[in-house]
Amino acid sequence: MRTAVRQTDLVSSEFDDGSAVSARGGEVGVYDASLGEGWRIGGGVNGGLLLAVAGRALSQRLGKAAQEGPAHPDPLAISAYYLSPGVPGAASVRTEVVRRGRAVSTGQASLLQDDGEGRQVERVRVLATYGDLGALGDQVSTTATPPNLPPPEQCVSTDQAPADFLRYASLLDRLDLRLDPATTGWAVGKPSGNGVIRGWLRMADGREPDPLLLLLAVDALPPVAFELGLPGWTPTLELTAHVRARPAAGWLRVNLTSRTMSGGYLEEDAEVWDSEGRLVALSRQLARATPPRR
Amino acid sequence: MRTAVRQTDLVSSEFDDGSAVSARGGEVGVYDASLGEGWRIGGGVNGGLLLAVAGRALSQRLGKAAQEGPAHPDPLAISAYYLSPGVPGAASVRTEVVRRGRAVSTGQASLLQDDGEGRQVERVRVLATYGDLGALGDQVSTTATPPNLPPPEQCVSTDQAPADFLRYASLLDRLDLRLDPATTGWAVGKPSGNGVIRGWLRMADGREPDPLLLLLAVDALPPVAFELGLPGWTPTLELTAHVRARPAAGWLRVNLTSRTMSGGYLEEDAEVWDSEGRLVALSRQLARATPPRR
Repeated sequence: MRTAVRQTDLVSSEFDDGSAVSARGGEVGVYDASLGEGWRIGGGVNGGLLLAVAGRALSQRLGKAAQEGPAHPDPLAISAYYLSPGVPGAASVRTEVVRRGRAVSTGQASLLQDDGEGRQVERVRVLATYGDLGALGDQVSTTATPPNLPPPEQCVSTDQAPADFLRYASLLDRLDLRLDPATTGWAVGKPSGNGVIRGWLRMADGREPDPLLLLLAVDALPPVAFELGLPGWTPTLELTAHVRARPAAGWLRVNLTSRTMSGGYLEEDAEVWDSEGRLVALSRQLARATPPRR
Repeated sequence: MRTAVRQTDLVSSEFDDGSAVSARGGEVGVYDASLGEGWRIGGGVNGGLLLAVAGRALSQRLGKAAQEGPAHPDPLAISAYYLSPGVPGAASVRTEVVRRGRAVSTGQASLLQDDGEGRQVERVRVLATYGDLGALGDQVSTTATPPNLPPPEQCVSTDQAPADFLRYASLLDRLDLRLDPATTGWAVGKPSGNGVIRGWLRMADGREPDPLLLLLAVDALPPVAFELGLPGWTPTLELTAHVRARPAAGWLRVNLTSRTMSGGYLEEDAEVWDSEGRLVALSRQLARATPPRR
């Protein structure tokens, strides 16, 4: 078991504020949220933040003990299908309990926003199975190896990214992200073509990682497509994350890879390792590749 | 474009019969199906077959052109959350169009069965984004390498599997499956511990692969957990598949790997390669590991 008291138990944080949800009175399973200006990337709100908002609503819905079984506060597997870009402003999350069980429970969530003309537009639909990672224990056995990174101080901060990237990336102000210089050729117009981006990640305000933060972490780095020589944005169709254990406090290491391009789509695989060298989350997304600029 | 006429266009097949759905009159988006005795594995109907049934219903629902966009008959990304074991007998699939678009459309499906006392029990809930693989082209670029397998005649047929495995595996009669002998130690009580099972796969009746059949293919081999020394069944919590291109006729090669065990769960990754050496499908599932027998 990890330390009982963490920084996140004591004070608020940008992530907790940015992904906060509040149960709407009188409507079971409906939560109100507000997508902040500070989580923009490219044309919309970061997809990982949207996943964290929906994931937090499901954590509240499934995280209370019920007649059918105990509390299941933690995402074990969560799949998001992105439908339209989230924009800063009010949002709501409508949740459904699909199945409550003893070991795990499954829920569904829709994140919606008003389109400005009174119509509710769905941004993302989520299916997820939740459990209790605290009860499952913290041991992770894997044949995978953590990414071999230079120390954070020898890595590239995102404030060194190209100006046209930073202009639409308020998300980066929330993060302390240090990319392995071997994987930042894209930032100076020389992508390696290797399909790998890796780096250190922690929150700029010191908020320590937990299972919900891992939902942001799997989609917080620059798209691996950049290092494949595809500088445009790569909108996510679908992202599924598995949270395999509760992360320890400290730096996360994130390893992004992409191997396969077909029909204008590529996959992006993320591994997230914690400061104790444990593989705490895996994700894969399918994204639309934007053709190279000509 | 591939050959215009295939065997599957001309005659029925076990797979097409086993995954058939028919639109229910008077209820938009509801399809009737029948889960066959011939698709059992372990305690229930094979999860890949359930995915194919739900996937076929969504293909019918999204595969017709609509005002908002063209026909999207093919799964690009599909996620299944397994809720209870499917059993042979009548089933229904309730579908919802979540979003229709020009490039892709997203749908949801619930596969239900009567519990014998008049209650509908959900077996699997599915979210998926569909497109038109025919319009996207057949080229696949990947840095992954196809599994290096001995020729099928030097591989191990599943009729050589242990009797207590075959007893609950009528699914295997539908398949012509030839496993690489380097990955079948589990069948003689000597699992390698490597977390790899690979082999050749085609349908026993000659039915050629297509995108829907790939939904079966990603979950048709013995669980990779066997080769990790976990001989029990590993129920799937969640499986997400990406269909990356239409497969060519002929043998498929399937490569299963598992790297990480935590909290009693493991992931199983599948790659499916077609006879032209193209990576046509990727999947990952999270499954509950059964502890070794003592």
